[in-house]
Amino acid sequence: MDTIDVRFPTSRHRDGSDAMNPFPDYSAAYVVLRTSAGAEGHGFVFTVGRGTEIEVAAMRSLAGMVIGQPVEELLADPGALARRLIGDSQIRWLGPEKGVVHMAAGGIVNAVWDLAARRAGKPLWKLLADLTPEQLVAQIDFRYLRDALTEDDALGLLRAGAAGRAQREEHLLRHGYPAYTTTPGWLGYDDEKLARLCGEAVTAGYELIKLKVGGDLADDVRRMGIARQAVGPDIRIAVDANQIWGVPDAIEWMRQLSSFDPYWIEEPTSPDDILGHAAVRRALAPIKVATGEHVHNAVMFKQLLQAGAVDIVQIDACRVGGVNENLAILLLAAKFGVPVCPHAGGVGLCELVQHLAMFDYVAVSGSTEDRAIEYVDHLHEHFVDPVRIRAGRYLAPTAPGMSAQIVPESLAAFQFPDGPEWAATADEPVSTAA
Amino acid sequence: MDTIDVRFPTSRHRDGSDAMNPFPDYSAAYVVLRTSAGAEGHGFVFTVGRGTEIEVAAMRSLAGMVIGQPVEELLADPGALARRLIGDSQIRWLGPEKGVVHMAAGGIVNAVWDLAARRAGKPLWKLLADLTPEQLVAQIDFRYLRDALTEDDALGLLRAGAAGRAQREEHLLRHGYPAYTTTPGWLGYDDEKLARLCGEAVTAGYELIKLKVGGDLADDVRRMGIARQAVGPDIRIAVDANQIWGVPDAIEWMRQLSSFDPYWIEEPTSPDDILGHAAVRRALAPIKVATGEHVHNAVMFKQLLQAGAVDIVQIDACRVGGVNENLAILLLAAKFGVPVCPHAGGVGLCELVQHLAMFDYVAVSGSTEDRAIEYVDHLHEHFVDPVRIRAGRYLAPTAPGMSAQIVPESLAAFQFPDGPEWAATADEPVSTAA
Repeated sequence: MDTIDVRFPTSRHRDGSDAMNPFPDYSAAYVVLRTSAGAEGHGFVFTVGRGTEIEVAAMRSLAGMVIGQPVEELLADPGALARRLIGDSQIRWLGPEKGVVHMAAGGIVNAVWDLAARRAGKPLWKLLADLTPEQLVAQIDFRYLRDALTEDDALGLLRAGAAGRAQREEHLLRHGYPAYTTTPGWLGYDDEKLARLCGEAVTAGYELIKLKVGGDLADDVRRMGIARQAVGPDIRIAVDANQIWGVPDAIEWMRQLSSFDPYWIEEPTSPDDILGHAAVRRALAPIKVATGEHVHNAVMFKQLLQAGAVDIVQIDACRVGGVNENLAILLLAAKFGVPVCPHAGGVGLCELVQHLAMFDYVAVSGSTEDRAIEYVDHLHEHFVDPVRIRAGRYLAPTAPGMSAQIVPESLAAFQFPDGPEWAATADEPVSTAA
Repeated sequence: MDTIDVRFPTSRHRDGSDAMNPFPDYSAAYVVLRTSAGAEGHGFVFTVGRGTEIEVAAMRSLAGMVIGQPVEELLADPGALARRLIGDSQIRWLGPEKGVVHMAAGGIVNAVWDLAARRAGKPLWKLLADLTPEQLVAQIDFRYLRDALTEDDALGLLRAGAAGRAQREEHLLRHGYPAYTTTPGWLGYDDEKLARLCGEAVTAGYELIKLKVGGDLADDVRRMGIARQAVGPDIRIAVDANQIWGVPDAIEWMRQLSSFDPYWIEEPTSPDDILGHAAVRRALAPIKVATGEHVHNAVMFKQLLQAGAVDIVQIDACRVGGVNENLAILLLAAKFGVPVCPHAGGVGLCELVQHLAMFDYVAVSGSTEDRAIEYVDHLHEHFVDPVRIRAGRYLAPTAPGMSAQIVPESLAAFQFPDGPEWAATADEPVSTAA
């Protein structure tokens, strides 16, 4: 197992700037598993710069639970590894099931799935869709979920999802999966760039775009006006506050934007505030409430659904304990009948999470209605198997694996702090703390 | 700023064994702040063995925000530092406000308060109690709390708490603060040891003892019978499942123990499951529900209170973002009229948290009724200013500071992995993963 701290200096151009993350350097705590026969599995935890070294340290601390394990055993049951990594009785104290150690476990678990899919010669979405309901259910830890989702519930959902699967797979391969774009809406962009990018998004075929809000109310009113003008009345505009508000502020601020018909408000407040999201949703309906990129485990998603706190579940490939926990979250969302619109962007999040959304379509929810995967046009050139977008849709990946591999040249160039892209700028500060 | 990974090999005797933590090695990610004038502030994050190196790495990553700061400025407003540490726009991605990075921030913030109290020549509880309501409120981040606790609410509570403060302080100094003991109840102890320690606890003056449960139902029934027999009907017996159950299991298992009149069930399920705790509480009343040692921030405590999920708030000195966030949690508990019974034990948790409970008594809740600080008789000999227990009560510390300092000889002996206590046993495994 190798770990690499790789950082892209995105803060130099304020790509990715929002109310809570004014100067992110999109980064990854990257992991490569190598078998003695020379096969590889790649995975990573997405980060935004400082602190990536902590995530790498956590991965190294977990390495002893992976290194030396028989490969066939590992690949036959990644869920057993996930339980060991997440349940270690000492490391668990540092979570449990949250933050640095949980994401590190998820990164390793994802690398095992990447290896399993490569070995099987299938893209991950297809590998998952080809598992039986019983095999999928065995991959999930139900300990804290049974008051909302039992093994039997999950089996029932998956068996129901089998009907029409072949047609959906064919449809997916032919037409792809809907995307929405956040490219126009970063806070750091000026009005002219915002209007131009909104227009381009519509031309490119997107039916949903997203704007960052929460910096300054007058700015937000003006920017929403520009965007609505640029896209017309029929394109959905979601807005994203990135947790900047408390509950009362969220309600008040969003009421000032309601005349522009926002489709959803994303992360209106702390991602931990389940009851707060429920209050915001009640106050702002019919504006939808979305969250998930910082929702740290399936127990939290369970409660967001139980409390009626969300209209949109935004899974993230790198926040929770890997593919296994995301299977649980997809099934929870299906049980409650809430659509999943994955969080993506950053570096590599689009590449990873498309597999989970496509599996959801083929084998669980069976629908793409009111569903779309976030798309941001950043940093895809660094991937061996980058996402492919056509007419506002993700084309289904066909290469074996989870599309997680960064090209070796990029890993070398952007390795922090010694790669040439960083060493060359060592004298100038490349990012500023908020 | 110096950081030290210090671990005590408690797993060798199964002290501290519970259903989720069968073999803990009580440890600390320890931090010492030194001013250029030679003053020191000590703090730490309590851990249970493996992974302490990750917590130390996180503290080192945050060090740049503390080192070189003007000391007077830092001590005049530790809340400003807490906001910087917790709010760093890049490191925040790894939480936010949870897990490894949040606890690291809390350890550093606590060290600043230790330094401030030493500088003032007061124990921390007294330093805090002598601050004005306005000064205390300025130390709290209300961003995500205002739907339950506003600045005005907090001022009102603190102003009301001023009445009778002098008498309470005198009472505290004379009589101390109630303790309860977990010493008898570890899962690794046999029945004879359990009975003997229960009897000794009553003789020593404790009115509440705690037993670990959740390993095996028949064992729990037998152990509860032994304990109830040993302490008689008038001593309260709390039980602690350390998160081992899902919601339905918790309800069913506890019903089997209800004939022994358990006072509270602690951590019946995932610490993240607010709605789960509420369901358990509704099903098991009048058995009380307690949680907190793994509740990762004030937003979670806010919801536990809003949802009517807890009867007992168990603050922990090392889980959240330091003294400042614990001030918020004490005020939330007071606003909802729920008693605080701090979590302690481990290594040094008793030493730290007594200051917060005593401050709560003197300046916030004004009461010790139905309140007690957990006490476990482990590892106090390693502290410069260890807790003092008399007749089942904590005596108020009088030495300046937060009682956080470990004696230099212990730091050196138990430093991991190079201290002599560990290097000598390098060939034999000292702990086993669950």
